[in-house]
Amino acid sequence: MTENSLVAALRAIVEAPAAAHGAQKRIVLGIGDDAAAWQPSRSHLSVITTDALVDGVHFISASMDAERIGHRAMAANLSDVAAMGARPVLATVTLGVPPDASEAWILACYRGMTALASAHDATIVGGDIVRAPALTLSLTVVGEVSRTRLKRRSAGRPNDVVAVTGPLGASRAGLEIVRRGGAALPAGVPAELASAAVDAFETPAPRLREGRFLAASAHVRAMMDASDGLSTDLGRLAAASGCGATVRDVPVHPAATAVAEAVGDDARGYALSGGEDFELLVTVAPRGFAHLAARYATAFGSPLVRIGTLDAEPGLRLEDGAERRELVPAGWDHLGG
Amino acid sequence: MTENSLVAALRAIVEAPAAAHGAQKRIVLGIGDDAAAWQPSRSHLSVITTDALVDGVHFISASMDAERIGHRAMAANLSDVAAMGARPVLATVTLGVPPDASEAWILACYRGMTALASAHDATIVGGDIVRAPALTLSLTVVGEVSRTRLKRRSAGRPNDVVAVTGPLGASRAGLEIVRRGGAALPAGVPAELASAAVDAFETPAPRLREGRFLAASAHVRAMMDASDGLSTDLGRLAAASGCGATVRDVPVHPAATAVAEAVGDDARGYALSGGEDFELLVTVAPRGFAHLAARYATAFGSPLVRIGTLDAEPGLRLEDGAERRELVPAGWDHLGG
Repeated sequence: MTENSLVAALRAIVEAPAAAHGAQKRIVLGIGDDAAAWQPSRSHLSVITTDALVDGVHFISASMDAERIGHRAMAANLSDVAAMGARPVLATVTLGVPPDASEAWILACYRGMTALASAHDATIVGGDIVRAPALTLSLTVVGEVSRTRLKRRSAGRPNDVVAVTGPLGASRAGLEIVRRGGAALPAGVPAELASAAVDAFETPAPRLREGRFLAASAHVRAMMDASDGLSTDLGRLAAASGCGATVRDVPVHPAATAVAEAVGDDARGYALSGGEDFELLVTVAPRGFAHLAARYATAFGSPLVRIGTLDAEPGLRLEDGAERRELVPAGWDHLGG
Repeated sequence: MTENSLVAALRAIVEAPAAAHGAQKRIVLGIGDDAAAWQPSRSHLSVITTDALVDGVHFISASMDAERIGHRAMAANLSDVAAMGARPVLATVTLGVPPDASEAWILACYRGMTALASAHDATIVGGDIVRAPALTLSLTVVGEVSRTRLKRRSAGRPNDVVAVTGPLGASRAGLEIVRRGGAALPAGVPAELASAAVDAFETPAPRLREGRFLAASAHVRAMMDASDGLSTDLGRLAAASGCGATVRDVPVHPAATAVAEAVGDDARGYALSGGEDFELLVTVAPRGFAHLAARYATAFGSPLVRIGTLDAEPGLRLEDGAERRELVPAGWDHLGG
């Protein structure tokens, strides 16, 4: 059972009644994007996204800071809201609690979730608490976006410029450091890069302002977050848009370069397939890119990084100087691991 | 750690930023009701509720029908939407999957969820799938209600008539039968009552039409579902309304009477504290009750059952002929079990 096969089977079940009775008119976007969308009023859409973290699978409660885990869980959901161009409004949290759970840990985790939600004007409005064999955090976030600004992953067109909101691979580098324990910092990694890597992994910043900025531009066609790894997520975006893609420049985060070098890994592999970077991935109409990128740099003080193009030809390719090879999606499958 | 103490501590964390910055204006109702509510447009509110089920805690996947477990998970969430007087719009499902999970079981479970959602015009729009040590279903349902019809649990007043939408205890009786295995039906329980009990436990009907009917009446003041047991939930409603309550008639479902008698239990205990009945609990302005109850009986072919009154005096009391004693909440604590 892989995630993609299971999702396809579940989707067939879930969408059958909609197909039989005519889809509910107010559902604008169902399964298959970063978030679903519906229409509560004439001018605005609501979006909803949900994402869970399980102790021992996505984090290790015994050795990781509870507040940072709360932050990360909230960041993953807010990133999906950002990827729709939406503004977060509220969150619900379902907490699975094992018999030996520490109340102090749980409260610290909620402080982390609340702090990040609140920094983006979102409120935790409720949830559920259940007994479970492992600490489990299941978050749902609702956001809103004006109808004309909703960005889907399926709206890309051949020749669109593909760009990301920042360099990639730092989160994967941070995981490498966390896995080895704080004491055994890989030799030769400057402390500030090690710290940037750990922060990218443990307290990622969802690109909400960037998402709304990009959503406001008619030149931006498709948008999603690259949280499962660029090779996987660009593959999904291209396929959803009926296109392929060629990557020409992979923006590798300096922390990824330093850590990968120190531990003997390939830094570009971290950037292409490490995942959990929470940068936004957009496709932009070619004639609009230069102007958009200039305005973006002014607004955020960092570049909108051009990495390649969408192509009419299906599949993903990586161009490396004169060499051109197939890019195999090697990011995160939530079941295959 | 009890559920109430943990919820209170989490609530303090979550609401602190709202108190500091002024609550987000669009959040109409936060933690502490069946669902939270916000305002996406001038005339309508959206409500959101979430509820999780864990294998080994809330169901036993090895011995229970997957489709029925899906139904029950969806019913619990839809019941919270019903309790707000709202109409369900969409659901998201987060699925925790252990390594040995059966894909057939998961698909059957989604069929159960989808069938019930679809019967009430709601659509499953997405979710998340994660590895977990036990099969876990975490559902979120969003509904909508016109602003003037939202019913809170805190709006009861002294002397209100307290009523429920049907007799109680059948679900607890069904649990008793399921626990003993289908083969060992308690002696003396008529087959149709045994079957009604098992259905009440495994495939409960959320009172959505009833909830909207009651929400449309200005005589109905407070509403919630009684899914954690009447003694617990009436205690919560009364406390939220700054009242106490006296129960004078406990409507015991005939299946609860038959099963409790056969196994040597107290049927009224099933009705007062068994939980999982998913009937709605309302308080009604005294002068409006007779008319409302008559219209309700015409609309649904079953009575709106008067069980007692709200009182100015705090606490819960049970009047039994001439005897009057304190009613101790003995329903479900999600952590105390």
